[in-house]
Amino acid sequence: MRPVFFLSDFGLEDPYVGVVKAVLWEKAPGVPVLDLAHALPPQDLRRAAYALFEALPYLPEGVVVLAVVDPGVGTRRRAIAAIGRRLYVGPDNGLFTLAWLLDPPQRAFLLEKVRPPAPQGVQTLGGWAPGGHTFHGRDLFAPAAAHLALGLPAGELGPEVPVGSLLRLPLRLSPGPEGEVLTFDRFGNAITTLLQAPLGAWVEVGGRRVPVRRTFGEVGEGEAVAYLGSAGLLEVAVNRGSAKEALGLKEGMPVRLL
Amino acid sequence: MRPVFFLSDFGLEDPYVGVVKAVLWEKAPGVPVLDLAHALPPQDLRRAAYALFEALPYLPEGVVVLAVVDPGVGTRRRAIAAIGRRLYVGPDNGLFTLAWLLDPPQRAFLLEKVRPPAPQGVQTLGGWAPGGHTFHGRDLFAPAAAHLALGLPAGELGPEVPVGSLLRLPLRLSPGPEGEVLTFDRFGNAITTLLQAPLGAWVEVGGRRVPVRRTFGEVGEGEAVAYLGSAGLLEVAVNRGSAKEALGLKEGMPVRLL
Amino acid sequence: MRPVFFLSDFGLEDPYVGVVKAVLWEKAPGVPVLDLAHALPPQDLRRAAYALFEALPYLPEGVVVLAVVDPGVGTRRRAIAAIGRRLYVGPDNGLFTLAWLLDPPQRAFLLEKVRPPAPQGVQTLGGWAPGGHTFHGRDLFAPAAAHLALGLPAGELGPEVPVGSLLRLPLRLSPGPEGEVLTFDRFGNAITTLLQAPLGAWVEVGGRRVPVRRTFGEVGEGEAVAYLGSAGLLEVAVNRGSAKEALGLKEGMPVRLL
Repeated sequence: MRPVFFLSDFGLEDPYVGVVKAVLWEKAPGVPVLDLAHALPPQDLRRAAYALFEALPYLPEGVVVLAVVDPGVGTRRRAIAAIGRRLYVGPDNGLFTLAWLLDPPQRAFLLEKVRPPAPQGVQTLGGWAPGGHTFHGRDLFAPAAAHLALGLPAGELGPEVPVGSLLRLPLRLSPGPEGEVLTFDRFGNAITTLLQAPLGAWVEVGGRRVPVRRTFGEVGEGEAVAYLGSAGLLEVAVNRGSAKEALGLKEGMPVRLL
Repeated sequence: MRPVFFLSDFGLEDPYVGVVKAVLWEKAPGVPVLDLAHALPPQDLRRAAYALFEALPYLPEGVVVLAVVDPGVGTRRRAIAAIGRRLYVGPDNGLFTLAWLLDPPQRAFLLEKVRPPAPQGVQTLGGWAPGGHTFHGRDLFAPAAAHLALGLPAGELGPEVPVGSLLRLPLRLSPGPEGEVLTFDRFGNAITTLLQAPLGAWVEVGGRRVPVRRTFGEVGEGEAVAYLGSAGLLEVAVNRGSAKEALGLKEGMPVRLL
Repeated sequence: MRPVFFLSDFGLEDPYVGVVKAVLWEKAPGVPVLDLAHALPPQDLRRAAYALFEALPYLPEGVVVLAVVDPGVGTRRRAIAAIGRRLYVGPDNGLFTLAWLLDPPQRAFLLEKVRPPAPQGVQTLGGWAPGGHTFHGRDLFAPAAAHLALGLPAGELGPEVPVGSLLRLPLRLSPGPEGEVLTFDRFGNAITTLLQAPLGAWVEVGGRRVPVRRTFGEVGEGEAVAYLGSAGLLEVAVNRGSAKEALGLKEGMPVRLL
């Protein structure tokens, strides 16, 4: 059975992650489920896209990547399975934009034939039955991920669509010199879209010039510094502080290598 | 081996969840443990009862449900295993009240013969040995859950007691028209005890009238709305806000369908 | 395959825990990974050392303990595998000080021959390849833990070093009467280095005298109390409050049994 790597913004204060795992187990008993992250900032597509990008090179080929960060749930956004060297399941909202730079899908399918899990082994309360309003993680994405984990054909999930029709966020990774602030990590470090951080260069961001160093430990406390982060992107940090706060940075702000 | 679905309010800032898993593994090597939720608000029985209710219809029959939210630890509350279509282990404090509406236990046993795990492979420090004060998750509930996961008889855990003697929270789910605020989710949405949300109806709560819609997205930002939540209960929310804060709602407040 | 018990301060807002698990899975497919704790306070070695101490007696012999709390990453601190009744992998920074009181290592090896995981199944973006700045959890500790989980010889990880050369924190557990505040738990309870809590005795800490009781429930709300905690160490708490805040306690403060 293929393992499922699972990322969401469901948090751990509610049982939603557990419910999705219960459905995966019910549909594919014994399936290994490995958590990628569940305490991502709610509905933050850029942050989630970055998390998937950071993890992707280390996800073995052939695994299922189940990702549910879904600000458009309830709207007409599509639900998809996409097949690259890994198998992707989630909303068609751009979540996989950066991951797919590294592992572009070859085929894609809409999840139109997926049937929600039938509540089982439960009493009805008068005429009431469990379920209520649709929870796509539980009713759509988990059954689809279980289907793929079992090695069943993606074509059984629904009609094929061109991979070119899959939605992408308007983000471009490049060696520069022009880039932008992609997102922030939990310490307030800014992750940028720049694919390099030449030692000795300077970075201009938010009206400031920041030196490029090997690590953030190479400047004094409270000083700003840029370096190549663990994902291979240029990051801007303030040693023992938050670059976001201290430098007033925002998502999408221009970043320039000098 | 039966999988163990594990819910607690232990949080993830301490190793308590990990210690429970270590005991499960020691007693039942290879047992699958699936986390339901561990960052529940500490000692909040209503919230925990709701989380179990929400997950229950998706938990496969025959699994072990280990739940430890235990404000009365150290008092004389009983510890129990209860057998319905699933096997429940936890304190006898009402935690399973709502789950058991869907899967009523047929038999129940006190955990009086359960032996705490013996620390092993450790040096003593002078006369000192590990363990200290009782931690029921580790010493009582984890060994009992492992016992059931191995398929061993519940009767070996301790004496049988009538299922009618199991403690229940004073909560009643009904189609209405009278109900109450059951609990809140992490976004401040109020979950109620009402089993329906008829489109076009109104809900009276906290001195306000709130329209019933299909989803919370159908009202403007900052407006209150009621809808059928993913668990099948009527919820009251404020679009992009907290109903708890904005409407001054509290647990137990009356809710009325108009 | 040996299970891996994994503790870190990576949090769950980023995919770092997931990336480490992906590398473990890639190197040792099917390896059971059990989380000990990941929301530990960042870079707090005392707290992490205590978490490992608390869990250790319940970790089965022969398992791999992977622990990454690493304020000195990027400095010259060593990376090690140490072999006691369990197999330890992590930075040589004192993290295992308290665990090793219970399970002293017999042999230790530097992780000098460990090769970082090769990103696979990914496109290059122009000349760019994933990886970037070293992330020791991913590049060093996860591959070493996978190696040991597979039952391969620790000697293949790098040169042996004397166990006496392993770094220890300056902490001493003793029956008293003199001790110190070791750390705090998430409720602000102070865990001390004292190995006993004789009923009827008093504890002097932060200029206050606190009675020893069986549990913290034996004093009134807001009152201070000392008791033997679940790890077997004397703890100081304020019933329904934070001892840290209410008594102004700090790490390292003297504690004295009277």
